[in-house]
Amino acid sequence: MISTPVHFKTISLHSTGGMVQFLAFLSLCMFLVFPLSGNQTDERQKHTLNLMPMPENVAVNDGFYPLTEDFSVSLDNRGGRSSERISKAISRFLHRLSGRTGLFFKTHEIGAGIPTGGKSNQTGLTVSFQRTGEVKLGEEESYTLTIDNTGIRLEAVTDIGAMHGIETLLQLLDADPTGYGFPFVDIKDKPRFPWRGLMIDSCRHFFPVDAIKRNLDAMAAVKLNVFHWHLSENQGFRVECKSFPKLHLMGSDGLYYTQDQIRDVIAYAADRGIRVMPEFDIPGHSTAWFVGYPQYASAPGPYSIERLYGVFDPTFNPTTKATYTFFTKFFKEMAALFPDEYMHIGGDENNGVQWDSNPGIQAFKSKHNIKDNHNLQAYFNKKILAILTKYRKKMMGWDEIFQPELPTTIVIHSWRGKESLKEAAVKDYNSVLSNGYYIDLAQPTDFHYLNDPLSDDLGLNEEQKKRILGGEATMWAELISEETIDSRIWPRTAAIAERFWSPAGVKDVRDMYRRLDGISLQLEEHGLTHIKNRDMILRRLAKNSDIEPLKVLLNVFEPLEGYNRHSQATYTFFSPLTRFVDAAWPDAPKSREFGFDVETFMTQNPSRENGDRLLTQLNTWKENHEKLKRIIDSSPVLKEIETASEDLSKIAEIGIQAVENRLSGTKRGEEWLKECKDTLEKAKQPRGHGELTIISAIGRLLQNN
Amino acid sequence: MISTPVHFKTISLHSTGGMVQFLAFLSLCMFLVFPLSGNQTDERQKHTLNLMPMPENVAVNDGFYPLTEDFSVSLDNRGGRSSERISKAISRFLHRLSGRTGLFFKTHEIGAGIPTGGKSNQTGLTVSFQRTGEVKLGEEESYTLTIDNTGIRLEAVTDIGAMHGIETLLQLLDADPTGYGFPFVDIKDKPRFPWRGLMIDSCRHFFPVDAIKRNLDAMAAVKLNVFHWHLSENQGFRVECKSFPKLHLMGSDGLYYTQDQIRDVIAYAADRGIRVMPEFDIPGHSTAWFVGYPQYASAPGPYSIERLYGVFDPTFNPTTKATYTFFTKFFKEMAALFPDEYMHIGGDENNGVQWDSNPGIQAFKSKHNIKDNHNLQAYFNKKILAILTKYRKKMMGWDEIFQPELPTTIVIHSWRGKESLKEAAVKDYNSVLSNGYYIDLAQPTDFHYLNDPLSDDLGLNEEQKKRILGGEATMWAELISEETIDSRIWPRTAAIAERFWSPAGVKDVRDMYRRLDGISLQLEEHGLTHIKNRDMILRRLAKNSDIEPLKVLLNVFEPLEGYNRHSQATYTFFSPLTRFVDAAWPDAPKSREFGFDVETFMTQNPSRENGDRLLTQLNTWKENHEKLKRIIDSSPVLKEIETASEDLSKIAEIGIQAVENRLSGTKRGEEWLKECKDTLEKAKQPRGHGELTIISAIGRLLQNN
Repeated sequence: MISTPVHFKTISLHSTGGMVQFLAFLSLCMFLVFPLSGNQTDERQKHTLNLMPMPENVAVNDGFYPLTEDFSVSLDNRGGRSSERISKAISRFLHRLSGRTGLFFKTHEIGAGIPTGGKSNQTGLTVSFQRTGEVKLGEEESYTLTIDNTGIRLEAVTDIGAMHGIETLLQLLDADPTGYGFPFVDIKDKPRFPWRGLMIDSCRHFFPVDAIKRNLDAMAAVKLNVFHWHLSENQGFRVECKSFPKLHLMGSDGLYYTQDQIRDVIAYAADRGIRVMPEFDIPGHSTAWFVGYPQYASAPGPYSIERLYGVFDPTFNPTTKATYTFFTKFFKEMAALFPDEYMHIGGDENNGVQWDSNPGIQAFKSKHNIKDNHNLQAYFNKKILAILTKYRKKMMGWDEIFQPELPTTIVIHSWRGKESLKEAAVKDYNSVLSNGYYIDLAQPTDFHYLNDPLSDDLGLNEEQKKRILGGEATMWAELISEETIDSRIWPRTAAIAERFWSPAGVKDVRDMYRRLDGISLQLEEHGLTHIKNRDMILRRLAKNSDIEPLKVLLNVFEPLEGYNRHSQATYTFFSPLTRFVDAAWPDAPKSREFGFDVETFMTQNPSRENGDRLLTQLNTWKENHEKLKRIIDSSPVLKEIETASEDLSKIAEIGIQAVENRLSGTKRGEEWLKECKDTLEKAKQPRGHGELTIISAIGRLLQNN
Repeated sequence: MISTPVHFKTISLHSTGGMVQFLAFLSLCMFLVFPLSGNQTDERQKHTLNLMPMPENVAVNDGFYPLTEDFSVSLDNRGGRSSERISKAISRFLHRLSGRTGLFFKTHEIGAGIPTGGKSNQTGLTVSFQRTGEVKLGEEESYTLTIDNTGIRLEAVTDIGAMHGIETLLQLLDADPTGYGFPFVDIKDKPRFPWRGLMIDSCRHFFPVDAIKRNLDAMAAVKLNVFHWHLSENQGFRVECKSFPKLHLMGSDGLYYTQDQIRDVIAYAADRGIRVMPEFDIPGHSTAWFVGYPQYASAPGPYSIERLYGVFDPTFNPTTKATYTFFTKFFKEMAALFPDEYMHIGGDENNGVQWDSNPGIQAFKSKHNIKDNHNLQAYFNKKILAILTKYRKKMMGWDEIFQPELPTTIVIHSWRGKESLKEAAVKDYNSVLSNGYYIDLAQPTDFHYLNDPLSDDLGLNEEQKKRILGGEATMWAELISEETIDSRIWPRTAAIAERFWSPAGVKDVRDMYRRLDGISLQLEEHGLTHIKNRDMILRRLAKNSDIEPLKVLLNVFEPLEGYNRHSQATYTFFSPLTRFVDAAWPDAPKSREFGFDVETFMTQNPSRENGDRLLTQLNTWKENHEKLKRIIDSSPVLKEIETASEDLSKIAEIGIQAVENRLSGTKRGEEWLKECKDTLEKAKQPRGHGELTIISAIGRLLQNN
């Protein structure tokens, strides 16, 4: 074990401003550090940091701190009051560490057994922080992490910052021939944005508490700090409401969270430094409220829970006192239940149909000189704002609430585009970006990753930039079930979390994907099903454990992007989300790899080695159909992907020919090329609500042919 | 589609008395039924019923009832009061059906939209029952299920019986070239035993509500009807107790069920026809109680939660009034919380150490002429019985409570052996068998499967036989975590469920394993992780998705049986249960298959075809080590199985030679044989807390060499 640091250099990503540079520099460091140490050098050079989000400053030094069964943690809270939260976090840390390494640690008590006060144990981790952090927007979250031959030191202002450092430390776990341990590093880290969120829509589909909790664990692992919980919709009202019990009793199919469960989730999140901001979407998106309380709608009832998806008419009546009496009592209860200082009121997609056809509302508008529905909604929002203010909540809402009548204390949640983000900032409103982070739309990770809340083209000054608080990935739930939610959120959201946390210059896509693969596996330790449910769905479809041919196809098959899946069938609350497409990932992994390989093959001089690599893959695809056909024949549910499998075989054949052509320098005629392109064009059609993904890569192979 | 029944015959398994006969007869039927219908015959002959537990009477007829998107369910409850439970069950049925088939059913409402009163819809399922069943020991559970060209008719006395029929129907789902559907059948079914249980120990490790719920779903799928919940132990007290809050606050590490959660679980179970019987284990196994209430122990405190496993000294003091005042209040609260008529008081493994060393207790024994600790425990039990009786509970306990002083109203839970079961029956006590169903001991499925609560050697008369109410699989939790509990319970417990439900004559082991494979896949739809967490654990160990070589070894590797794993390391509450052995199944699947193949090869004239099949498998094993070595080298946690992998390679080589010898009629010398046997002997040693499983099969190949 090399135990003396022989190299130390801090790299500021802010100042060097680019991941490519950082990595190039890092490789250089690695080379410079270990040029003379023989086998050990080779071993050490294998170590590539696998951090996500990438810290602001990272220095890698020469050496490896071994992890043994004697490993212990000591807590030095510098005279500040002790934090039960950090004790629990350390207990989870040890549990995850022993889970990965199989080590039977000698010290491993829950909330106990962690020595406090002493300055450190020479053979373990020392954690110190100055005060217990508040789970609140803008709280201090920085930390420093130093690993050398004397041990591991984690220092932070708050216990929340220390918990971020613990997650970084867990990502640093590595192995050398002697066993597990941690590379010597000096890390100084803090977030770029204070608002780093994930929204989960528990309304279009319902997700039990355990599903929420495992996602909170994963959020903490990638340093997200806001759980935005979408709790009311046309399709369901999901919170136990004591003031108006018909909300949850009649508006939820029995699928709602009890207040005990909500308190449990909030405490669980707070233990991980995560805020829980509820959203009650009003005045539109509110059918489920009116099942029990039709009197507050703008048109007479009765109402029933909406089963379809889209924009619907039911809207609160903004013109009657009863509506505001209702909301006063409602928000009083909810403000007490949810401790976060923000309350999200939605406010999106009110289509105005009920308002336009209600004579009373029309009369009200005339009488009060309200010129259109937009202004009527502003009137409504002002009344709601007063209620929220009374209960000490700040108001947040989607783009539509951005109206000049409202004070700049509200927060604009931008879903429609960056224009609104910019306009809000210019006009002194704080805002949070979700446009570009709609993870329900099955777009590739890099699309979200390169979407920066503070992109240069916004043209904001420094003061205005500060008003952009951060962003939120939004997991809308029309097309996800408990079985698939994790695979839609993860691992893509880890890359979005990096966008919110790391310096803007960290944006090398290939490196992001490399790190993402490792992080994705680590996320499984929280019980996430994003990897394991793929095979499970395939086994169910095939009624068999032998699903290899299905996996081969699935690895180059993605759900239709955007809202295109809705054009393939009328999805309702009851529709099965268990088909082949539901097992597919938005980022078909083989497709991405293949694309990179094709690019290398096409831009460099074609080598036999690169060619063979492509040919092996192409042959697997070509030969897969025959095997898959046998499974499809006994599983009618798989019939819908039969032509996709056939087409994969056909376009793989085209790819094989194209690779052979390039390797041998052969040029085929125009006719062959046209035939190939026709085949590729046909292969683009949607099948089974998804599509093949390697078509453009195969098309690339045809260039210069 | 053949739509006219051309054959009808009822097979009583009771009367023919053997699965082998039944299957032979069934094959004959299939042959007789379809001799003239060409291709369709071939298709139909593929259909093999995949039912578990096997119904009492099954007749298969010629025909297939198609499942389409128009499929609907009508409920005819014959004037009885309607059952919300059956509506929910039908909703779940439709959800599972659409989940498997991908069909978008037109009717699919939760608890609504199911037409009632009418006699049936010609194109779907009609469910009828006479009354809402009570979730209570001895309730009527029979049903009949008829599928023909007019539709599917399910009839039962109670809605609980109807729900059993729904599970059978889901197991009958099949496919032919036209799509999904159900074979024509006539099934008459009822359980052999009224008490068919699964015990889960939530104390040695804690399992969240969702884990409990998915196991309840799986229990219902295989017609188990008692969830015995082990809720207090040395290692934890797991129920919120309002009368004595220090029980859960100080005795659980915060890992306890709130009363709301318990009510939720009970309601969830009742919706599936499952009783929930709690166990509070007293007077021993009670350390966790004394952390908050040391005054009721037989020795002074303080006490802390036990972290080790085994039998420990802390025991309630049976001689003080305070103890019974405590239990009166305690059981009053718990009797109200748990509606089941039975309360399990444990009563096992009181080692008497605290009693023997307490002078007050010794004096009490003398004064009251209590000759030994066994009698002192009987005294204690009588007092507890009086308390339970006051709160209208019947008392159940492990073998140790079987004392002549106690009335025959108690139920003996036999864990030590069938002698106690017999003795109890002879002396007029009711009993339930768990000996032979200890699924924590990693024994193979067939061991449990062939263990009959009413085996002939008991020599009981008909009256006495009735006192054996059934059995319970027991999932003790020393060596399981939330990640692995499902794989320890399932699929093995499905075979145990068949033992409790089906006629005694159903006991063909190979057919059981064939059906079990199918049932195991179906159980995944409840969210069970018994299959998917294997790969997840391997991915974490390998830090990689490429785990094929690990799976090859895992398929012939089992956890050490019995209590042997505890001799390999000191397991505590905190020990990692994430190692290679934790991914292993108690029934290594390849091992079983290979054993069957070897037996065929050795008992028949050796054929090239059979030989090649064995050789292919043996070569995979032989060549695996080189690939696995690369993974092990980068994952220290896998080092412990390196020699097992080497040995697999070596014994596979022996197998290859033995197969070649037999195929070519070669006899090798004694020396070769001895060397082989030595290698096999060495390969038997435990590694990584598990062992290789194909050694005896390889040994079999050496016979006649």
